[in-house]
Amino acid sequence: MERRKFLATSSVAGGVAVGMAAPALAQTSNQPDIRWRCASSYPKTLHTIYGAMEMVTKRVAELTNGHFRISLHAAGELLPALQVLDGVQNGTVEAGHSASYFYIGKDPAFGFGTAMPFGLNARAQNAWMYEGGGLEMLNEFYATQGVTSLPVGNTGAQMAGWYRKEIKTVADLVGLKFRVGGLAGMVLTKLGVVPQQLAAGDIYPALEKGVIDAAEFVGPFDDQRLGLNKVAKYYYFPGWWEGSATLTMFINPKAWDALPPSYKAALQVASAEANQWCTAKYDVGNPTALRQLVAGGAQLRSFPKPVMQASFKAAETLYQELSDKSPAFKKIYVPWKKFRDEQLMWAQFCEAPFDNFMAGTIKRV
Amino acid sequence: MERRKFLATSSVAGGVAVGMAAPALAQTSNQPDIRWRCASSYPKTLHTIYGAMEMVTKRVAELTNGHFRISLHAAGELLPALQVLDGVQNGTVEAGHSASYFYIGKDPAFGFGTAMPFGLNARAQNAWMYEGGGLEMLNEFYATQGVTSLPVGNTGAQMAGWYRKEIKTVADLVGLKFRVGGLAGMVLTKLGVVPQQLAAGDIYPALEKGVIDAAEFVGPFDDQRLGLNKVAKYYYFPGWWEGSATLTMFINPKAWDALPPSYKAALQVASAEANQWCTAKYDVGNPTALRQLVAGGAQLRSFPKPVMQASFKAAETLYQELSDKSPAFKKIYVPWKKFRDEQLMWAQFCEAPFDNFMAGTIKRV
Repeated sequence: MERRKFLATSSVAGGVAVGMAAPALAQTSNQPDIRWRCASSYPKTLHTIYGAMEMVTKRVAELTNGHFRISLHAAGELLPALQVLDGVQNGTVEAGHSASYFYIGKDPAFGFGTAMPFGLNARAQNAWMYEGGGLEMLNEFYATQGVTSLPVGNTGAQMAGWYRKEIKTVADLVGLKFRVGGLAGMVLTKLGVVPQQLAAGDIYPALEKGVIDAAEFVGPFDDQRLGLNKVAKYYYFPGWWEGSATLTMFINPKAWDALPPSYKAALQVASAEANQWCTAKYDVGNPTALRQLVAGGAQLRSFPKPVMQASFKAAETLYQELSDKSPAFKKIYVPWKKFRDEQLMWAQFCEAPFDNFMAGTIKRV
Repeated sequence: MERRKFLATSSVAGGVAVGMAAPALAQTSNQPDIRWRCASSYPKTLHTIYGAMEMVTKRVAELTNGHFRISLHAAGELLPALQVLDGVQNGTVEAGHSASYFYIGKDPAFGFGTAMPFGLNARAQNAWMYEGGGLEMLNEFYATQGVTSLPVGNTGAQMAGWYRKEIKTVADLVGLKFRVGGLAGMVLTKLGVVPQQLAAGDIYPALEKGVIDAAEFVGPFDDQRLGLNKVAKYYYFPGWWEGSATLTMFINPKAWDALPPSYKAALQVASAEANQWCTAKYDVGNPTALRQLVAGGAQLRSFPKPVMQASFKAAETLYQELSDKSPAFKKIYVPWKKFRDEQLMWAQFCEAPFDNFMAGTIKRV
């Protein structure tokens, strides 16, 4: 009698199996074995950026009792650093960890996923991504490019890099051979800078020999490892082209769609954790590195206000030009700019007065 | 031949079972059914704070295919708002979502988990929690109190609240009946303020009748719902007692220890996601609410610098007194203060110059 009742129930549920094996088998289908490969645009030595994606792979494995495993590969192992997006698009890899702004050559709208000159700080960038419609807008655009995405890591505001000579006026930018990429390079070109593209490992010798006059990278924690303070003593701030920079996990849409719901959730939640962790890791590492760089001879300098203002104006001009050229750019730019300005307004009544008062309670480095 | 080979392999792996059922049964033990109850110190109407914990419960269920379920209960349902910690300690509930600083009566060291007057902004608080040893220090202290914890939500810098009269000098604080709690109340007592303890729902009538002169709550998004602008028109900033405020999920250690590793990971990662989301939700909701409050008659005012300085000095004095009184407080305070000052130093070279320049590019509300 009991058994007949059980079989009847089992039949309603779809008759998947009988006896003890029924719930067990149901669970097996919830946790299928899935293996992904993720190509990074970064070397393993960048403990924060590469480390953020590493954190995601570990968490996902933990969350799925080892049934969803993502192997992470440093730049060059599976794909060249700047071809990660292409590899995800064509299915060479299921996922890639990269910076969307590496791909502005395809469409300038790729800039919004990482950093825009005079854009959002880390607080505002996260607000935009998670609650301001940013991630939805980005993924709507990325869908036209054959990928989808999740944010994985934010560096916070970056330094403006290392300069062999001081920048005292806007005129000092004319002819400056500066290792800087993407939209920042396009803005600075308007002010006479000659942007240079160089891999991280090539910066030191180029600066040493005077092939370039200046180079930006990230901030003290990462810059220290390149030893740039030995070949260019002026360390400028703020890096207005990266008021924060988000790293992106690009995902092949077919691979994403094939995931069971709990694995999709695992990727989303692990990405969010790593996004937050990355900024924390930088914030803990940067002050000590900055002190060591200054002790090693680095001279801290802020851009003069006229240089900031001229750069801001050049950026606004560029954004108009890009809006005219790319409908995808314009579609994101208009609400993004409105969002940025609202965040700046709000910051004037809470964060800024608090932060500025607190700044006055300590001595500078 | 194939079957014999399979059985041999199975035997090497520990001979847990034979045939198809083997991996299935192994997985069942990885995802046991677990039910927790979580008591919140907040009402459901606080969509950001209560919502952050709600987000954790949903994520945990998703990640575990519904096998780990946490039912969330608003303040008063299972436990009074301010007895959540006690309920977790004595095992009435497995978990509670609360603010650690509600419990400074037990030990002032409970302040660090939420917010300290002139403490850490949201960026620095997260850096301290996740990479600066903060969460470890807190949990070491909490272990002596019979609980463990995870951060779940950060409000960002709060407003200083609603005042019936302007605060123009330090003398204007004398005799001020101000709805403010915890360590902030202890600091302000030194300046002559008479702190008042009132539940959120009692603030409006008390302010309206003049029983109190001022009240602080959170920020525009939450304050708007209380309608305080109708009974006290001066809206002050910054809320220096909460440069950011972290919400805490207190967990009963026995309940925690009984979780399988993947469920512990699910709670950790879901908490981190909700922590980040909460700030984003506030940042998106606050600007619009602020505009509406101002349109409704709110007059924005910043505390005069002498008021800020006198408050800062009073806070430093209080911290010395509490350090003398509580070894637990002192043990956290010393490294915490060092951490705060290093974060303030670092912010002067990146965040602050960028944020301050950007602030100048827009008009005030």
